[in-house]
Amino acid sequence: MADTGTVRTGPDFRSDNTGAAHPKVLEALIAANRDTATSYGLDDWSKRVQERFAELFERRVRVWPVATGTSANALALAASAPSHGAIYCADIAHVHTSETNAAGFFSGGARLMLMPATHGRFSAETLEQTIAAAGVGLSHRSQPATVTLTQATDLGVVWTPDEVRAVSAVAKRHKLTVHMDGARLANALARLGCTPAEITWKAGVDILSFGMTKNGGMLCDAIVVFDEAVAPALNFHLRRAGQIWSKGRFASAQLLAYVEDGLWLELARRSNALAARIDAGLRGAPGVRLAAPVEINEVFVNAAPELLDALERDGIRYSRRARDYARFVTRCDGTEAEIAQLLAAFARHAAHA
Amino acid sequence: MADTGTVRTGPDFRSDNTGAAHPKVLEALIAANRDTATSYGLDDWSKRVQERFAELFERRVRVWPVATGTSANALALAASAPSHGAIYCADIAHVHTSETNAAGFFSGGARLMLMPATHGRFSAETLEQTIAAAGVGLSHRSQPATVTLTQATDLGVVWTPDEVRAVSAVAKRHKLTVHMDGARLANALARLGCTPAEITWKAGVDILSFGMTKNGGMLCDAIVVFDEAVAPALNFHLRRAGQIWSKGRFASAQLLAYVEDGLWLELARRSNALAARIDAGLRGAPGVRLAAPVEINEVFVNAAPELLDALERDGIRYSRRARDYARFVTRCDGTEAEIAQLLAAFARHAAHA
Amino acid sequence: MADTGTVRTGPDFRSDNTGAAHPKVLEALIAANRDTATSYGLDDWSKRVQERFAELFERRVRVWPVATGTSANALALAASAPSHGAIYCADIAHVHTSETNAAGFFSGGARLMLMPATHGRFSAETLEQTIAAAGVGLSHRSQPATVTLTQATDLGVVWTPDEVRAVSAVAKRHKLTVHMDGARLANALARLGCTPAEITWKAGVDILSFGMTKNGGMLCDAIVVFDEAVAPALNFHLRRAGQIWSKGRFASAQLLAYVEDGLWLELARRSNALAARIDAGLRGAPGVRLAAPVEINEVFVNAAPELLDALERDGIRYSRRARDYARFVTRCDGTEAEIAQLLAAFARHAAHA
Amino acid sequence: MADTGTVRTGPDFRSDNTGAAHPKVLEALIAANRDTATSYGLDDWSKRVQERFAELFERRVRVWPVATGTSANALALAASAPSHGAIYCADIAHVHTSETNAAGFFSGGARLMLMPATHGRFSAETLEQTIAAAGVGLSHRSQPATVTLTQATDLGVVWTPDEVRAVSAVAKRHKLTVHMDGARLANALARLGCTPAEITWKAGVDILSFGMTKNGGMLCDAIVVFDEAVAPALNFHLRRAGQIWSKGRFASAQLLAYVEDGLWLELARRSNALAARIDAGLRGAPGVRLAAPVEINEVFVNAAPELLDALERDGIRYSRRARDYARFVTRCDGTEAEIAQLLAAFARHAAHA
Repeated sequence: MADTGTVRTGPDFRSDNTGAAHPKVLEALIAANRDTATSYGLDDWSKRVQERFAELFERRVRVWPVATGTSANALALAASAPSHGAIYCADIAHVHTSETNAAGFFSGGARLMLMPATHGRFSAETLEQTIAAAGVGLSHRSQPATVTLTQATDLGVVWTPDEVRAVSAVAKRHKLTVHMDGARLANALARLGCTPAEITWKAGVDILSFGMTKNGGMLCDAIVVFDEAVAPALNFHLRRAGQIWSKGRFASAQLLAYVEDGLWLELARRSNALAARIDAGLRGAPGVRLAAPVEINEVFVNAAPELLDALERDGIRYSRRARDYARFVTRCDGTEAEIAQLLAAFARHAAHA
Repeated sequence: MADTGTVRTGPDFRSDNTGAAHPKVLEALIAANRDTATSYGLDDWSKRVQERFAELFERRVRVWPVATGTSANALALAASAPSHGAIYCADIAHVHTSETNAAGFFSGGARLMLMPATHGRFSAETLEQTIAAAGVGLSHRSQPATVTLTQATDLGVVWTPDEVRAVSAVAKRHKLTVHMDGARLANALARLGCTPAEITWKAGVDILSFGMTKNGGMLCDAIVVFDEAVAPALNFHLRRAGQIWSKGRFASAQLLAYVEDGLWLELARRSNALAARIDAGLRGAPGVRLAAPVEINEVFVNAAPELLDALERDGIRYSRRARDYARFVTRCDGTEAEIAQLLAAFARHAAHA
Repeated sequence: MADTGTVRTGPDFRSDNTGAAHPKVLEALIAANRDTATSYGLDDWSKRVQERFAELFERRVRVWPVATGTSANALALAASAPSHGAIYCADIAHVHTSETNAAGFFSGGARLMLMPATHGRFSAETLEQTIAAAGVGLSHRSQPATVTLTQATDLGVVWTPDEVRAVSAVAKRHKLTVHMDGARLANALARLGCTPAEITWKAGVDILSFGMTKNGGMLCDAIVVFDEAVAPALNFHLRRAGQIWSKGRFASAQLLAYVEDGLWLELARRSNALAARIDAGLRGAPGVRLAAPVEINEVFVNAAPELLDALERDGIRYSRRARDYARFVTRCDGTEAEIAQLLAAFARHAAHA
Repeated sequence: MADTGTVRTGPDFRSDNTGAAHPKVLEALIAANRDTATSYGLDDWSKRVQERFAELFERRVRVWPVATGTSANALALAASAPSHGAIYCADIAHVHTSETNAAGFFSGGARLMLMPATHGRFSAETLEQTIAAAGVGLSHRSQPATVTLTQATDLGVVWTPDEVRAVSAVAKRHKLTVHMDGARLANALARLGCTPAEITWKAGVDILSFGMTKNGGMLCDAIVVFDEAVAPALNFHLRRAGQIWSKGRFASAQLLAYVEDGLWLELARRSNALAARIDAGLRGAPGVRLAAPVEINEVFVNAAPELLDALERDGIRYSRRARDYARFVTRCDGTEAEIAQLLAAFARHAAHA
């Protein structure tokens, strides 16, 4: 993932984690910065997070703030997969491509088993067949333990509640835990229009990596546990992993601000809308092909190398993934002007390509 | 560590991590919250941290922001101790008493070996004898790998440069890595009056857990590597541990604000001075005995159970460690009035004890 | 791998590990069973193993007897791959399909990365391309550490010295360690007619799992280290893994008997020859297709389910891997009569199929 | 543990693992070496081991043959202690002094917590107090998981059923698993005269390392599981640890021979009796003091350095643990003549000391 940012003046579509934190997140930190508070997550803000997320998800949940999405994923997966376990994921899943060996490390050896997927979504049938071939009960085979879905996928495509439910049904029939990597959960929800409950535990999800950083957050994501039986020792795991902040109120305050008054969904709608404008703008552009449907805030494009080179020369910053393949991510703090600049550049160079 | 905080109105001496973050730390976050920045620690703030800490420590260093002191310690220790290694520490070291099994977990099995120590400081001779009895080269014995010193110790006592140097000399003769857990490094420096360099690498320290949270910080500590050979793969370890924030600028900005214009030392002097006032106020108090010399911002007290009970009833919040034993920690955001209240309560009840 | 052995009277082609130990292996145990001997591998037999294998491989080597092939593979791979490492293997490699999560467990998280292969052999080009796409130096990616070749492959096909050398050249250019899983090394050598040195270190292999069990052995395999730099702490790893027998002479005596006077190659020639007879006998058999060339002591067959069912009814024991797919393994203690029985059964039922 | 064996002609008291295997163990291997057998522990011998040990222990058990005592201990402890767990043991326990970091490695970080003990036996009160101070439920503390007793202890002293029961009662009250390291179980039983059941599960032991090697065994020990709930995934752990031999019959045959007709107890009585002779012979010897009561086949002696030096010069082989401290171990294949030689040497040199 080459960084195209030598010219720093152009619009920035490299990722949604290059953006700023939303001002309300910072205001929440300032508001929390008074008096003393019990340390290690026993403060009032951390208690409020539990209540607030219970409302949000329409049931009792256990929320654990953590530093990063990788730690959320790895600790959630390790909570359910033993060291001899298999964790099933899409062939392009972030846990496979972009988190070093975190899941295997935290679980003491559990393996990610890749399944063929279309734009990062695999079918219930694929999971069923994979488990059928796994050798359940045979001691020389990795034992099916967990299935993880990335919502939205790493190609920016959204799992519907029905699709999640179909996969979960297979998982539960075989006693697997269902994990959702919700690094872009808000964007998925903004797209789907369903409730957080509908896309998670009501569809069979047991444990969720709740992403915030990419959508106006700052230094905090979270693990949300729906079925406490899947992660009874998570407090010990987190403390041992150095993921329980002593000044926990400053983590919880971020999470509270993020979901207050639907801020998270509002922000996701904003970045999704910007991507939709790119989508619309590129339709019919000569020499440009979308590599996946644009459903959230990511646009994957196949285009002539010369065209992509020209964009770089113009100072457009984006993620060049191959000579003829690129990712453009919109941010909740992105602007219409940036989109216009990008589309104009595309138009200008496509004409010559 | 019972939380005495049911009455919330009294002064709070439970810990220095119950306090607020210094306003300048928050201002730095606000200042950093503009434009976009390259993610995963390749931003300008993170680069400045490297330069700024190089000045601070008077040599090239590698600084890795991490979420907590536990993660700093565990990752630093795991970087130097293999899974068959032994890590030598004081019998009361925080890594032993308060970090679950973090060091053993991150290293894949390395063991903490406790050494007798006075107020948390062990002698070079003790280390020498311990290594001599370890069975170097014998495959059935844990192999000496690392020695860790807590600065200041968990009884609030400070290692002098000479003391660190004596231990390091033994360590280096036996090819051990020297780690310093600097959770209260600023308080120790404020006490010693020496430079950061003098108490760390100039005294033989190879890798440092740089604490910030307890002294006006918020959500960030750091690992500082002096000898890169001891931790060549730390970037992979950190990423895999979920300890590389994607919006790294917000971590680095905290560290920059913390050391800017000597803020960290100023804050440490403040909390140290408050503890010194308690120390002075308790001298000669009937029925009260200091369990360790007061050198930084912690006061350990042996007193009659009735006296300690009475303090609790008065709403004084502190860490009651046994019926007749308690810890009082002063904070950089503590006040003279709180100290006066504490001393008055002691005086009031000691008279009756 | 269903066990077809309900009828116990028929010939047994289930695996080469169902067979007996060669009498000379037992005689060696009896001969070693006198007097006392220094424990934990410091006995005379263990010293002789080092010398004998040095002759065998025409260079200084370090031999570590271990209990099983899985422990040999896992400890050898873990010696070279750090917890953030990637281990490249063929898509059908035994380390992937049949050793639970051993490599990931012993390495603290290193991942097996599957490469497309023909009959278990992958090309140097495939390895080159895989490494090129791995993201060397990027902390969010598993880092290339080790490549492992199975000799012979899990489809009974042999790597030539030239093929091994080509893969090793790529590996060394990228600083990867080259491991060979030699569970059937003797069978491969019997086929190739080259020296042990030519197929291992002279072709670039750094560390070898030396299989003995399947070829007339009993309870012992070994790790052979050619480049000690790849495994400097292996003695600690083995002891910690419970793989250093206190009465080590009884392990070393087995290894000595196995290679004495070329016994291992003689035995391998025997089982290879039996498989060659099956190969010859099945050529032209109607409805029977070999799934891979028969180069050692394994015959992989595609055949009509009815035909395979009929063999089972006849009491022929073999490994039924799918309705129309089966593996037949010949043993060094197998007999011509068994082969004749198998071929007669095939002929009998194929005529009706 | 210096090896005194440069002169190879003298009697050998270095350890019981320097001795030969009992001829019946070898005969059993020869008897098992016919026909084919299903691999990986599904053979008839392995089934008989389950039945035979069920009789021996007077209840249903699950027996897992393993290569060494270290692997038995480490896998048994890891089965019950999670990565954030604490394992309580005597201050001189073999798992602490002589198994590198095996328990921590296999458990992913669980810690051995040493308890003060007399000759390796700790009291129920000591365990009770240790657990009381452990911080159960506090996420920053290692959580009590397992207690392990060495039978006999590493100073050759035996736990009585009452003593085991008292410790188990405390353990069970706090939901700890009780493990017994029975490396010298037979010697303890020979001393106690009780049944295997009485000293294990009837006294509260959940899981046992069943030692055989030191008492006439060869290459095999075992894990015996009384309460399967403590180790439900042990088959996967063992396979993943490379501890399931493919030719399992040769391991099980050793175990069967060992317990057949009470051979194990007969052998233990023999070595115990030889040690008792040393004990009797040294009583009243000038300058010689027993460091622990002689209850099994080990004699720990404090004596003048000159006396110990003189024994070495005479070619007596033993384990010199300090200038004035030594261990003498008798073997089931030891002889009266060796004892006489040792006692004569003691007498000769003590007279001059």
